[in-house]
Amino acid sequence: MTMTADQDTATLVKSLEELLGSDDIAAARDLLESIHPADQADLYQRLPPEGREGLVALLSAEGIAQLIAHLEEDVREQLVDRMPRAALAAVLDHAANDVAADVLRLLPPSETARVLSNMATAADITPLLGHADESAGGLMTRGYVALHKDMTAAEAMTFLRLSKPLAEEAYYLYVLDRQNRLEGIVNLRQLIVSDPQAVIADVMARDIVTVSPDADQEEAARLLQHYRLRALPVTDEQGVLSGIITADDLIDVIAEEATEDMYRLVGLPADESVFAPLAESTRRRLPWLLINLFAAFAAAGMVAIFEGTIQKAAALAVFMPVVAGQGGNAGIQTITIVVRGIAVGEIELRDARRVLSKEIAIGIIKGLTFGLLVGIVAWAWQGEWAWGFVVGLALLLNMLVAGALGALIPLGLRTLRLDPAVASGVFLTTFTDVFGFLFLLGLATLLISHLT
Amino acid sequence: MTMTADQDTATLVKSLEELLGSDDIAAARDLLESIHPADQADLYQRLPPEGREGLVALLSAEGIAQLIAHLEEDVREQLVDRMPRAALAAVLDHAANDVAADVLRLLPPSETARVLSNMATAADITPLLGHADESAGGLMTRGYVALHKDMTAAEAMTFLRLSKPLAEEAYYLYVLDRQNRLEGIVNLRQLIVSDPQAVIADVMARDIVTVSPDADQEEAARLLQHYRLRALPVTDEQGVLSGIITADDLIDVIAEEATEDMYRLVGLPADESVFAPLAESTRRRLPWLLINLFAAFAAAGMVAIFEGTIQKAAALAVFMPVVAGQGGNAGIQTITIVVRGIAVGEIELRDARRVLSKEIAIGIIKGLTFGLLVGIVAWAWQGEWAWGFVVGLALLLNMLVAGALGALIPLGLRTLRLDPAVASGVFLTTFTDVFGFLFLLGLATLLISHLT
Repeated sequence: MTMTADQDTATLVKSLEELLGSDDIAAARDLLESIHPADQADLYQRLPPEGREGLVALLSAEGIAQLIAHLEEDVREQLVDRMPRAALAAVLDHAANDVAADVLRLLPPSETARVLSNMATAADITPLLGHADESAGGLMTRGYVALHKDMTAAEAMTFLRLSKPLAEEAYYLYVLDRQNRLEGIVNLRQLIVSDPQAVIADVMARDIVTVSPDADQEEAARLLQHYRLRALPVTDEQGVLSGIITADDLIDVIAEEATEDMYRLVGLPADESVFAPLAESTRRRLPWLLINLFAAFAAAGMVAIFEGTIQKAAALAVFMPVVAGQGGNAGIQTITIVVRGIAVGEIELRDARRVLSKEIAIGIIKGLTFGLLVGIVAWAWQGEWAWGFVVGLALLLNMLVAGALGALIPLGLRTLRLDPAVASGVFLTTFTDVFGFLFLLGLATLLISHLT
Repeated sequence: MTMTADQDTATLVKSLEELLGSDDIAAARDLLESIHPADQADLYQRLPPEGREGLVALLSAEGIAQLIAHLEEDVREQLVDRMPRAALAAVLDHAANDVAADVLRLLPPSETARVLSNMATAADITPLLGHADESAGGLMTRGYVALHKDMTAAEAMTFLRLSKPLAEEAYYLYVLDRQNRLEGIVNLRQLIVSDPQAVIADVMARDIVTVSPDADQEEAARLLQHYRLRALPVTDEQGVLSGIITADDLIDVIAEEATEDMYRLVGLPADESVFAPLAESTRRRLPWLLINLFAAFAAAGMVAIFEGTIQKAAALAVFMPVVAGQGGNAGIQTITIVVRGIAVGEIELRDARRVLSKEIAIGIIKGLTFGLLVGIVAWAWQGEWAWGFVVGLALLLNMLVAGALGALIPLGLRTLRLDPAVASGVFLTTFTDVFGFLFLLGLATLLISHLT
């Protein structure tokens, strides 16, 4: 079967549910086996609980291992929770060992030990469990092929043929010394095109990009993307090879981190999904809006200070959303560029001054443009130059503040070693609201005799 | 040299500029050759124009080809523009042919033909030029290795050794029939671990994920990520293999598309960079803010309708930012989740009703929670139940609208086959401002006798 982009999950869900409903187990199994594990995972995630159990019952331990590799984390956790521990050990023995380690991290420590004691691959997986889930160490697998530099290409090929490395992790071969320190890398293609009598030491590349097991997974993803690698070796301080991270795992990291940045800017938890249960989504979104409410009260408090002025010139309320809104939107543009620039490594801390002065300059240009425009509208509408002056100057000042804060907030969070995206958006719009109202209503109070 | 995550570009820039300044060409070349092309590209991008020319002068045609592969598009275009056409042909002969095609697409058609006529690899590159830059065809390379299914594993290895495929594109080997239709795929590892006498037809995988050359590059990226592939074959309607797309190119697509979504939500052009010249950045950001200004005027117009009410009860202006701000932020949460869900393929159009009803339900829960909270504050502050009722109900209604529109706007844009992210943010906050002020000031006008 040649699969195309138009695989229709909904149709598959329907067919499978019908077959399971009519107890035609053989046909259901045939259908399932014709589907790529990645699509089985999509299918699984769209089934109701009883359908999910039916699907798992059709699969072998190896099949479940492949399914688990493609499930999203929360769904994977539910599946693992319901599985008998002996069955789980058999499944994990068939999984890539980075996947097995991820699953074991989901269990309480006592259960992890129990499952490991029933696993044939425990020796490979135990060292992986010491690393945090979001670190380079937490992504690595030990399923790499190690060579010695004195081997010939022909010997290396024979070694490969006999050891039959399990996964597709065998694209790069790692040359280690007696202390297991990484000395070089050979890729399969080099091995094949080399003279069979060539010595590995002469074929291998010695310029190696490595990452430490404690590095953040984002750092590992950036290295892989920057150097366009297919796998990244993880080495400790002594240069000993701890494992490798394959490109497919880091592609997920790159996509996740981008989503995380977007979500954090607007105060959503990184793993929020549109199909999460209603109660869970509500519980996750409310706290941020509560923080936002305090911010809104700060802006409201600023307005309350000037309630007397508004009573005298109610048209000021008309210009409040214009001054606050234009400032907020200009600032959000800046903050998005700076947050993303930091995330992809384009902006480093030493660039802070350059970024800040550019964004302030743009803020002034934006402020002059829109201040003039809105000022003229205000003057024309109210028939009084003071209206134009108050509204226009307030907008100019607010856009200047927006540009400066749009750069300062993420750079400041970064300096404090915090995530530049976290809550950046709410900080910014709170400031642009508060300052916008202060500039507009403060100037109006000073010039009130010219406004009424 | 073993490279680590801490490669310091700024230090390298300084050293290289000093060496170029002191005319120590040999030392400058040694320094440059010790650096990975990806880091040379970073270095290049941080040099002033004369430094950039100095750097290029140090490199061979092959070195320039590798540098070009890692440059960002605008920088690449500037470099190519300044290069003599004969030199460019020599450089492109050393480049991967997807990179060569990308560069040739930057030139006017007449120049493209002239450069091609001087290139040894013209025959491979010409077919690539017919595809749009952002399509699957535009990303593919023809540097794949093709086998025949009647070959044995040993014959395939000998063929590989003799043909010495150039790039690292040789991880998968493609099995074609006499009409060049793709029949199966063998990976190098399978070839090596197979019995040398095994026939390719028995070793190859026949379940193949392919993409059409006209498909959007985002579609190709999604397939690669979903099926965890290292390369994706591109086939036409007849199943003829046109080329392959390697994972490193699609990783860039995944990162770019995520940035694009973020940028479009806040009205930035997709390729805006923090280090773009001031004039360019200003020119790119102003149009959006102008659109936003019209939106702000719409909100201001709504307030103007109720100016008389505000004159009677100026405290209404205090609650305006609370009602509009909470609605806007709640809606932005929803819109971000829906835009991202559509982008990563989690949400399809058939899910529209489910997404909409969930987001409306969350909007009601948010509205009840914050409506009650803010209503009590308003009542306590103004000492009148009607204040609590007006402010609380306005907030409840606005959060309901925000939830509904946060889902409807991106889903609607998607139905119209437009980008769901484009301008979504400004549409949404315009509506939540306009509706928020309508609810607050409209209710206040109805109940004005109880408020004053």
